[in-house]
Formats: sequence, C-alpha cells, structure tokens
Amino acid sequence: MKLVSFSTQAGPSWGVTCDGGFADMGLRSAGAYPDLRSFLAAGAPADLLSGPLKADVSEADSRLLPVIPNPEKIVMAALNYHEPGGDPAKVPDYPVLFLRLPSSQIAHGDPLIKPRQSDRLDFEGELAVIIGKAGRHIPKDQAMAHVAGYSIYNDGSVRDWQKHSHQFTPGKNFTGTGAFGPWMVEAAALPVSERGFSLVTRVNGVEKQRTDTSKMIFDIPYLISYISTFAPLFPGDVIVTGTCTGFGTTRTPPEFLSPGDVVEVEIEGIGTLSNTVEAER
Amino acid sequence: MKLVSFSTQAGPSWGVTCDGGFADMGLRSAGAYPDLRSFLAAGAPADLLSGPLKADVSEADSRLLPVIPNPEKIVMAALNYHEPGGDPAKVPDYPVLFLRLPSSQIAHGDPLIKPRQSDRLDFEGELAVIIGKAGRHIPKDQAMAHVAGYSIYNDGSVRDWQKHSHQFTPGKNFTGTGAFGPWMVEAAALPVSERGFSLVTRVNGVEKQRTDTSKMIFDIPYLISYISTFAPLFPGDVIVTGTCTGFGTTRTPPEFLSPGDVVEVEIEGIGTLSNTVEAER
Repeated sequence: MKLVSFSTQAGPSWGVTCDGGFADMGLRSAGAYPDLRSFLAAGAPADLLSGPLKADVSEADSRLLPVIPNPEKIVMAALNYHEPGGDPAKVPDYPVLFLRLPSSQIAHGDPLIKPRQSDRLDFEGELAVIIGKAGRHIPKDQAMAHVAGYSIYNDGSVRDWQKHSHQFTPGKNFTGTGAFGPWMVEAAALPVSERGFSLVTRVNGVEKQRTDTSKMIFDIPYLISYISTFAPLFPGDVIVTGTCTGFGTTRTPPEFLSPGDVVEVEIEGIGTLSNTVEAER
Repeated sequence: MKLVSFSTQAGPSWGVTCDGGFADMGLRSAGAYPDLRSFLAAGAPADLLSGPLKADVSEADSRLLPVIPNPEKIVMAALNYHEPGGDPAKVPDYPVLFLRLPSSQIAHGDPLIKPRQSDRLDFEGELAVIIGKAGRHIPKDQAMAHVAGYSIYNDGSVRDWQKHSHQFTPGKNFTGTGAFGPWMVEAAALPVSERGFSLVTRVNGVEKQRTDTSKMIFDIPYLISYISTFAPLFPGDVIVTGTCTGFGTTRTPPEFLSPGDVVEVEIEGIGTLSNTVEAER
C-alpha cells in the first residue's frame, strides 16, 4: 500500500494510491484524520484502509505534497554509508545530524529550486524513515516498532551556503530543496532489518550514486535510539538516514545542478522520486 | 504591554499581563486567535488589546508557556558578540546558525532539565526576536518592520553532546533546555536600533555574562536579511541572536549547572527569565 499526501481544489488531504488516482482518506475519515500525520498519531487504524479502495481523486485533478508536509521535526544524517575500500578507522563515533525545516520541502514532481544566490545546488539520495509511534529514550532493540514506513528523500544542498560556517543550516534549508516522495510504503513492505535495499541516484538518466541500505554506518535502530535520547519522537517525524558518495561535490571535477536537470532517486521496494531543477524566479 | 502564552485547566491560551494575572486574549477573541502566533499572523490587530484590561486568569490558576510555544522555526545564532579586547580579525564572515526544536522549549519558571546522559549542562543568555510579518529576501533596511517584539532566551546547551560531531544539533535540542520568556515586549518598547540594552546572566545570583545588544557582531537587520535569503520567515518565528562570553565552558575551570542552580537572564527593558535546574527523572 502506498500512502500519499496531496492537494486538490478542496485543499490538502492524504490517501492511498489506486488505479487512476487516490482514495481520499481525509474525506473518507470525515475529517477525523485530516492529514497523514494525524492518521499516524492515531495509531494508523487499519480498518480505514481496508476493503476495496477506488480513486476519489484523479491524478490530473490533484498535486502530490511532500509525504509528511508538516512534521514536527526532520532530522537529517550526513553521509552515513560505508564505502567500498573505505577506511574503517575513519568511521565517526557518532552520527552527524542536522535539522531541515518543513517549509523547505517539496513533493515528487515539484521543481527543485536553484536559488538566485548560488550556482552550487547539489543532490543527495537518501532513505527516509517516518515515525509512527511516539517515544523518548527508545532502546535500539525496540526502535523498529516506532517506524510507520519509508519513503525517499533528495537532500538538496546549496554547497557554498552550507560552508558559510561550520554549521550546515543555511545550505540545507533553502526553499524548494528538500524533495520527499512520492509516497510512504508501510514498514512491513521494506524489511530493512533482513536485507539491504538498493539506493540509486541518477541525474539526466546517468547513475551518480549507488549503495544499499545494509551499508549504513549508523543503522535505523541506532539513529532512532540516539535521537530519542535528546528529543522525543512524534508520529510523522522524519529521519533521513544519510547518503553515500557520488553526489556532485565528491566528483572530479565537481558537478552542480542546472535548470532543466532531472534528479531521480530510486529505492528498491519503494519507487522513484523525480524532480526537475528550475531557477528561482 | 507584556504579551504572554499560558495554560489553565481550560487549556493553552495567551494574553496580556495585568494586575494579579492575565487578560485572556484567546477567550476575548472568541477563538479567532487561539494562540499568540495566530494573533501575530493576523497582523496583531491593536483593537483587541486596547481599552481597560483586567485579569481573567490569576497567576495562581495558570502556568506560563514558552512565549511562542509552537513556532515554525527557531533559528539560533552562536556567540555573536564583540568582546572587550577581542581581535576584530577573528570576526567570522557569516553568522553561525543552528536550529532548535519547538519541543525543546520551556517557560519562565519551568525546571531547566539536566539530562541523565550528561553532567555538562551549560547556559547562554540571549535576546530573542519574534517575527510579526512574513517575508523572504528581506533587505536589511526593511528588516525591522518584520519584528513583532522581543523576549529572553536561555539557550541551555549540553556540551558533550554538542561536540559528538561538528554539528551542534544533539547538544542544542535536549528536552527541557530552551528557556523562553517570561513575555514578549512589543518592538517599539525596545528601540535596539537607537541604543544598546544590557544583557546579564546570573547563576545563583552571581553575574556570569554581561554585554549589551549594541555589541552584536551580526545585528538584527543582518540576521533577518540573511536568514530570509534561504528560508521564508513566518509570524511567530523566533530568531535567537547569540550570546557573549562568560558561559560555563568559557570559564577556568569550566562550570556546569547542577540540580538546584538558579539561572537568571535579565535584559534591560524586558525583564528577567528565571529557571531552576532539575535532574531528569
């Protein structure tokens, strides 16, 4: 089952992908769960999604939103993949974490915005974990019970602004740079504890990044446990689990995105997140 | 006029300080402005606050909340004050910015929480700027028109977790460490463009930090303009403008907070934010 957030002329809603469009769960729940976050906060009651579902809304009459448009927090891990031939001694002691603002997010199919102020827009394909069950001080061996599902993130990064200081904040929070979609698959659909799922990023069809989720340095249970040591996790919170080498600034010569470039991030078992770069107007 | 957020048995609300308590503006606006953020988003219509105001709620029957309990963003500047005898060549090119989660905030009078995981809780007294008018790409010479008012922040920092990596995120986001209060004074009450206002931090009555707001390296118009270059500013957003030397890790030997310690941050023209340290249970 693929859960989506979308908007129509009637406003924002959420639902399930069906032939030809979306079953509108904001509507079908009669406003009890106006958004995917509120559905997750209610424990994702399965009865709402059961039975034969048909499209209430056509794809043509709707526009996808970021999978969770309004999370309380988006915690991003930097890098976080073992590389072939990498030096195990260089693995950091702790994950490198930064925060992304919900207002920087865009949906699958939205333009990825190259800011006026920079020619150094870069991509990073990543697996996004969506929290279903709240918690604090979550032990690693209970962490996976807090995961509602998975999606795909392109952590669009404005490299010169990322390096204005030692804190990444500006370069990681430009409007229109955090692509999140197309949908959430439920946790059971992606058994990441059992095996790795491939993660590939392409620009204009050319492969730039390839790894699989078993190669994470700090795995999902570790990240959930570590983050929940300092902050409570809430339903709808998003943990973006980091990227592997191959993004633009790791290449020789460095490559940056230009208007018209198409960035695709594909994760096995989820799908493909695609965005085309546009210059900020 | 001092604007506060508070909660009673009836739930969260906001209002104005009066003799003996608070005029309840959530109630008086008949739900039109359920919180201070929504009032600011409506342009802070002055008629609501005019006329003789008397307390609807006593201090005894209410509890202060963080001035803005639910901002879309809290952007924090690190350091950001010129020091006496400091080397002007060491002034950075850009402000050092990080984000704090709304869920890490506490109110004036709430316990400041020393986490189980650390004995290195530190304080940083700072001026908080509360945004009234939304904007993006705000020029410096128009920035002050976006300020609704000012308050006081104690950016409680867990120093060992702040240094787990080069990104400050974990150490700056522990639950119960971001003290914000007691109230907001309107922008006109604190003419920071005209002169400096003193900022003093005390621990158990002993002065630890002293500066004034004219000594900021990146001033309020600069911060508003810089931040709005990458992210839209929304009503209720909080910009915390950085601290001066004198906090615990700048002292010889370093000083950290222990349960029972009382931290007060006083800013001329606003008041005093006070919190007592408690160990996490």
